[in-house]
Amino acid sequence: MYNEFDDIILKTLQEDAPFGDITTEVTVPKDAFASGVFRAKESGIICGIDIAERTFELVGGEVSLIKHKTDGDCIEKGDIIAEISGNAASILMGERTALNLMQRASGIATATRKAMDAVEGTQARITDTRKTMPGLRKLDKYAVRTAGAVNHRFSLSDGILIKDNHIAAAGGIAPAVRAAKRKAPHTLKIEVEVESIDELREALEAGADIIMLDNMSCGLMRESVKITAGRAVLEASGNMGERDLAEVAATGVDLISIGGLTHSVKALDISLKFDLNKL
Amino acid sequence: MYNEFDDIILKTLQEDAPFGDITTEVTVPKDAFASGVFRAKESGIICGIDIAERTFELVGGEVSLIKHKTDGDCIEKGDIIAEISGNAASILMGERTALNLMQRASGIATATRKAMDAVEGTQARITDTRKTMPGLRKLDKYAVRTAGAVNHRFSLSDGILIKDNHIAAAGGIAPAVRAAKRKAPHTLKIEVEVESIDELREALEAGADIIMLDNMSCGLMRESVKITAGRAVLEASGNMGERDLAEVAATGVDLISIGGLTHSVKALDISLKFDLNKL
Amino acid sequence: MYNEFDDIILKTLQEDAPFGDITTEVTVPKDAFASGVFRAKESGIICGIDIAERTFELVGGEVSLIKHKTDGDCIEKGDIIAEISGNAASILMGERTALNLMQRASGIATATRKAMDAVEGTQARITDTRKTMPGLRKLDKYAVRTAGAVNHRFSLSDGILIKDNHIAAAGGIAPAVRAAKRKAPHTLKIEVEVESIDELREALEAGADIIMLDNMSCGLMRESVKITAGRAVLEASGNMGERDLAEVAATGVDLISIGGLTHSVKALDISLKFDLNKL
Amino acid sequence: MYNEFDDIILKTLQEDAPFGDITTEVTVPKDAFASGVFRAKESGIICGIDIAERTFELVGGEVSLIKHKTDGDCIEKGDIIAEISGNAASILMGERTALNLMQRASGIATATRKAMDAVEGTQARITDTRKTMPGLRKLDKYAVRTAGAVNHRFSLSDGILIKDNHIAAAGGIAPAVRAAKRKAPHTLKIEVEVESIDELREALEAGADIIMLDNMSCGLMRESVKITAGRAVLEASGNMGERDLAEVAATGVDLISIGGLTHSVKALDISLKFDLNKL
Amino acid sequence: MYNEFDDIILKTLQEDAPFGDITTEVTVPKDAFASGVFRAKESGIICGIDIAERTFELVGGEVSLIKHKTDGDCIEKGDIIAEISGNAASILMGERTALNLMQRASGIATATRKAMDAVEGTQARITDTRKTMPGLRKLDKYAVRTAGAVNHRFSLSDGILIKDNHIAAAGGIAPAVRAAKRKAPHTLKIEVEVESIDELREALEAGADIIMLDNMSCGLMRESVKITAGRAVLEASGNMGERDLAEVAATGVDLISIGGLTHSVKALDISLKFDLNKL
Amino acid sequence: MYNEFDDIILKTLQEDAPFGDITTEVTVPKDAFASGVFRAKESGIICGIDIAERTFELVGGEVSLIKHKTDGDCIEKGDIIAEISGNAASILMGERTALNLMQRASGIATATRKAMDAVEGTQARITDTRKTMPGLRKLDKYAVRTAGAVNHRFSLSDGILIKDNHIAAAGGIAPAVRAAKRKAPHTLKIEVEVESIDELREALEAGADIIMLDNMSCGLMRESVKITAGRAVLEASGNMGERDLAEVAATGVDLISIGGLTHSVKALDISLKFDLNKL
Repeated sequence: MYNEFDDIILKTLQEDAPFGDITTEVTVPKDAFASGVFRAKESGIICGIDIAERTFELVGGEVSLIKHKTDGDCIEKGDIIAEISGNAASILMGERTALNLMQRASGIATATRKAMDAVEGTQARITDTRKTMPGLRKLDKYAVRTAGAVNHRFSLSDGILIKDNHIAAAGGIAPAVRAAKRKAPHTLKIEVEVESIDELREALEAGADIIMLDNMSCGLMRESVKITAGRAVLEASGNMGERDLAEVAATGVDLISIGGLTHSVKALDISLKFDLNKL
Repeated sequence: MYNEFDDIILKTLQEDAPFGDITTEVTVPKDAFASGVFRAKESGIICGIDIAERTFELVGGEVSLIKHKTDGDCIEKGDIIAEISGNAASILMGERTALNLMQRASGIATATRKAMDAVEGTQARITDTRKTMPGLRKLDKYAVRTAGAVNHRFSLSDGILIKDNHIAAAGGIAPAVRAAKRKAPHTLKIEVEVESIDELREALEAGADIIMLDNMSCGLMRESVKITAGRAVLEASGNMGERDLAEVAATGVDLISIGGLTHSVKALDISLKFDLNKL
Repeated sequence: MYNEFDDIILKTLQEDAPFGDITTEVTVPKDAFASGVFRAKESGIICGIDIAERTFELVGGEVSLIKHKTDGDCIEKGDIIAEISGNAASILMGERTALNLMQRASGIATATRKAMDAVEGTQARITDTRKTMPGLRKLDKYAVRTAGAVNHRFSLSDGILIKDNHIAAAGGIAPAVRAAKRKAPHTLKIEVEVESIDELREALEAGADIIMLDNMSCGLMRESVKITAGRAVLEASGNMGERDLAEVAATGVDLISIGGLTHSVKALDISLKFDLNKL
Repeated sequence: MYNEFDDIILKTLQEDAPFGDITTEVTVPKDAFASGVFRAKESGIICGIDIAERTFELVGGEVSLIKHKTDGDCIEKGDIIAEISGNAASILMGERTALNLMQRASGIATATRKAMDAVEGTQARITDTRKTMPGLRKLDKYAVRTAGAVNHRFSLSDGILIKDNHIAAAGGIAPAVRAAKRKAPHTLKIEVEVESIDELREALEAGADIIMLDNMSCGLMRESVKITAGRAVLEASGNMGERDLAEVAATGVDLISIGGLTHSVKALDISLKFDLNKL
Repeated sequence: MYNEFDDIILKTLQEDAPFGDITTEVTVPKDAFASGVFRAKESGIICGIDIAERTFELVGGEVSLIKHKTDGDCIEKGDIIAEISGNAASILMGERTALNLMQRASGIATATRKAMDAVEGTQARITDTRKTMPGLRKLDKYAVRTAGAVNHRFSLSDGILIKDNHIAAAGGIAPAVRAAKRKAPHTLKIEVEVESIDELREALEAGADIIMLDNMSCGLMRESVKITAGRAVLEASGNMGERDLAEVAATGVDLISIGGLTHSVKALDISLKFDLNKL
Repeated sequence: MYNEFDDIILKTLQEDAPFGDITTEVTVPKDAFASGVFRAKESGIICGIDIAERTFELVGGEVSLIKHKTDGDCIEKGDIIAEISGNAASILMGERTALNLMQRASGIATATRKAMDAVEGTQARITDTRKTMPGLRKLDKYAVRTAGAVNHRFSLSDGILIKDNHIAAAGGIAPAVRAAKRKAPHTLKIEVEVESIDELREALEAGADIIMLDNMSCGLMRESVKITAGRAVLEASGNMGERDLAEVAATGVDLISIGGLTHSVKALDISLKFDLNKL
């Protein structure tokens, strides 16, 4: 299938070897063969295996992967993710790019799943934000999706999110929502950020489809859910990475958006170990 | 000065607003004015202010920044980093890009400085690795440098690092180092990765300039320092992010390289708060 | 403001003068001055004046425009759109690019306004499709918006539109809508294409937000409006460019999408006439 | 063969699915198979089949086309242009790009052939202009060629066309032509635009290879042909899209250039209809 | 003016400093000022001064040039070409790029002028070929033009040159020329390569506009001139860099094309010397 | 293997045929077959055969090469380098790009080997500079390496070379070297340019790893070698292309860097001759 990650992979390869791999060039024979194993060094959700495979396709040189896992699988420390074999120089050329991408994607997927687990059994769904890594938003959002959570808007161009400054500029919540309903693409829902119960009521009256409850206490969130009574989707937001997600979910909100899923990622540790005997 | 980060900034702006900012377009008048303040929400080392400023230059629309801090400054929670004022739509267009870049760079600088503090008073210097974010290596390495640490090689093209697989392919440490000395650019030092005292001795005899001690206990590192006796630079490596850095430094190694500085970054929390009265 | 059209303008300039303007280079002195007038040769809605101005900024060479009109203005045959003056070679370099872009955008805006006029006084709004010119979707959609109509989704990545083949693959309208509700970004409405009253009922029951009535007679559309009773947004679609829009609008549908607005554009005729005496 | 259209196709795919096809991703199984038929919904000259085929190659995912027609063929309403089968998601990903490109190219080819038919039996040949769609000049000119007409210059860089402003700047037709003869590549013919019989005579005396008769009446064109007597190629130009081409051709001019062939294109209607039973 | 060389300059800067200038960063204060002088270290034709100036504009950092010479000027060893002053780091960043481009362009211009001088007093003009440096054709051809010679076609897309293999494939000179006349843009002259007098006659009869005499002796060229008698432009070609150009010109040919002008360039030696006292 | 030259090849193809090969399009049947031979027209070191092969892969159209030589081989005038056969239009499309790249690379390799031969039997090694062709540094440095010499730094970003202006700005050789030792990546050696014996002593005392002897007489170089006594690598530099290399090498310097290897390249003459009978 059309690989939407090709631009990221190629740019990364070029960044990592703008004019070749000097060490390999001077120490490894051109036709040397190597094989090895990608192995999890900690538990989590794996993501990016196809991207790793595509990396070696783009590097070229007849490298093949036998994949033991699929994106979204739960993996345990020590699990083999994939076996790799082929031209040694090619594997060394693609190694760091494949690992850097897979480790980040898996780190995001793992954190996302952890958040999902924390709210399991409630109606609340986990979602992401625009606090993604510059140039890697596609990858970051794919990892969130792969873990089973839902993506928020991809960019300023494909979602309406009316914040305090828009409200101030438009002269209030009602005129802001009205303007959006009149002028924005009809395919988009209208989301409004509120910080108080009064603002919530205004947004509801204005007909907002989604209301973001910004930095509210659980008490206020519960009250918001009661007042809203299903008339709009409610999204809890604001430092959610440091909140008790189960408690937030218990308030009855529909969504919890967590910037930390993508802005502060702990890479999942994955190693590529060569079989030196077979080199 | 020639801005080496322009490509990153432009790519990020385009990713974040491929066809405009819909919300702002429908709610904010074209000529609305806004002003606000970038403020630290936690303490650390600030990095990326010039990049944030350049972001608004590239966005255009007559936005100006009054910078209160300089890259590399220590900042406290609550500190004002910069004041911003100008066209409201322009500020909203550049806001997320500027914050995402500055928060990552500052997160890296903060973690780097923390590592430097841990080894203060010793001869050991902190360095980074190639475990950087795809497409952002320039930024990541700049943040490490800004914090005062030293950069390791930028890519496979500008440093020699002979690892186990190169050694296996070349037929041993000595032939690998010899090949590198003969064929690689004379401007580069030759670094060899070793995992035991025996390999260390081999690398020393072969004339390696730098020797990476991979995943060694502090005891082995101390022994390595004694044996080396200044004949090569010694670099401690391997999960250093989870080791007691002061203890590692106390062994006498010259450098400690830490992948976690760039592969698992906790973004430094920075907010851009608008002055809604002035909108 | 950040000019989202720069990539289109630069690509077009490069296409039109990959290695300079030979004729001008051999016949016009480097520092010759020229002035002229952009004039409408037919009536319509003007669109793209800022893009034309930006074209000459990107060409450089100290050219300035005095704009007599603003994007979205109604213009009459003979109206002056803008006066231009500055370096002759620069004006000649940018002339065709500016005209080609402005004529297309104005042609789209004019056709859009004509469609809007046809449905005036009804609740129906005019919208566009993905049948835009490759590489120019941003421009095409901007022209539709400038005329006062609303944009449909920009791409496959930012809107849900479930068509017959998706329904077949998912095993029916209900499972397809259910899957979309569960997995797609919550910021997007769910649109389903239907071809009959039975399918309409299914889509309504499944909870579609928007229902596209594909190629229906006005009788069927009227019946659809009655059955829907406000439970979903109804969009009339399918060769709308050749239908009587007033009649379609009178059925009570909310939106009419017209591919022809952008796939078969009659450029609005605009000339740039130089003042030869002043050359 | 080296596909000169790859850049256009890739850019269009990326524009149409910057981060994937959400609808398909949530409703269509990854390995679903689909088949369908590209069919003409009106008569004309088909152009762009190879480009459509290449689109699906670039999308990937094992899609194959059985082509029933060749670029340049006359097709009737209802004709099958090609059969397509393969991975459903891949076909859906490439569908709009393939159709948008093929419909425009066929629209241009059809209009071009119509113009050629109007002048059949005369010596006059039909040619295009630089009034092409920004970014698509290669495609537009290919379509004109495919229909059997000849291309005018591709850009400012590969043809000499001396217009009124060049003449004014150079100080007259004779000095302008002289300068061009002396300084321009010898591989290019020199074309001069004239608006009167006097200017025609000047251009002939100056030794112009091609003379563009701009907006002349048929009477003046006939006179120009007589005066020229084969000493230069004569090209009729200026709103030719709205003139009676047979009458223009009958004046004896060698070429008729028509901007409308590419600036105001009516896309040829082509559908891709899936075989839903086989999905 | 629109700078058609920007892409070359930017690419070169990026090639020369992909992640900054390490030496300068660690030794030169950010705000240090420097001044210096570009000086000719040998005599020749200067070319590329504006490109050098533009290089420093693109680098940024407030650098200014006072130009003492203009592209195309004859310079003597020791002549000052331009004075430069401004931010030291900026000048060091652009230095090599500016010199590499200017030295090549000047080398080409100098060789071209030398060839022109050799044929002075004859009707023969000097022209170039497609044997240019990959990626730098625009620059190379600009240098040839700057010296006062004429450019041959820029690429395969903007000139007709029928060689032996085209003739063989088309079934002879006459059918090849006929096909070109019928199908190629009317703005292009038709050039045919011949190796013998027989082929010359065929080309003349077929109506070729330009005939390339490939690797002919001066005797054969003289005969060709006589036979042609002005019916076509004659271009001498084939290792002309190693021939006696005056002798070739004396045969009466109209053009002499020399691949060596651009494929084997001796850079003109130019130095940038800093005024160390003012640093 | 990952082809680091793809960007150069693709850019060159696009430069040489931005919108197709007109001559071939109008004279050669689409499915015509051709075969031919790449042959050396002078002796030297061949370089770039794989790049030529890759060019035809990127052009496409089923062309195959049988390589008779390998990069780095010594070739004699008349030697067959490779046989080529396949689609005629494809071969014609790639011909000039393949030749231009291979001829330049071979020209550099040949000049490099010649320099190496001149110093044979001494300890001196030949190296290159940053005086490479803009956009082609990768290729130029590859050719130097292929000939068996060593590369100097690739760019300002991957090597330390402290010149007079850095020294002036830093306040002397010692502070400049000290700053570099403290702040620059530890993987890089520190090189200092000196012009006198006094400066040499300073550089040695400061601990420079490499010392560039700029424009010194052989006498001074000999003295420098004696004083240095192995404490640093010595590089002779400055117009080395015009010096007696054997004499320079005899002074005992370790390296001789020659800008002329890449800034003033005489292309090695290679022809592609078609077998016209088989066309």
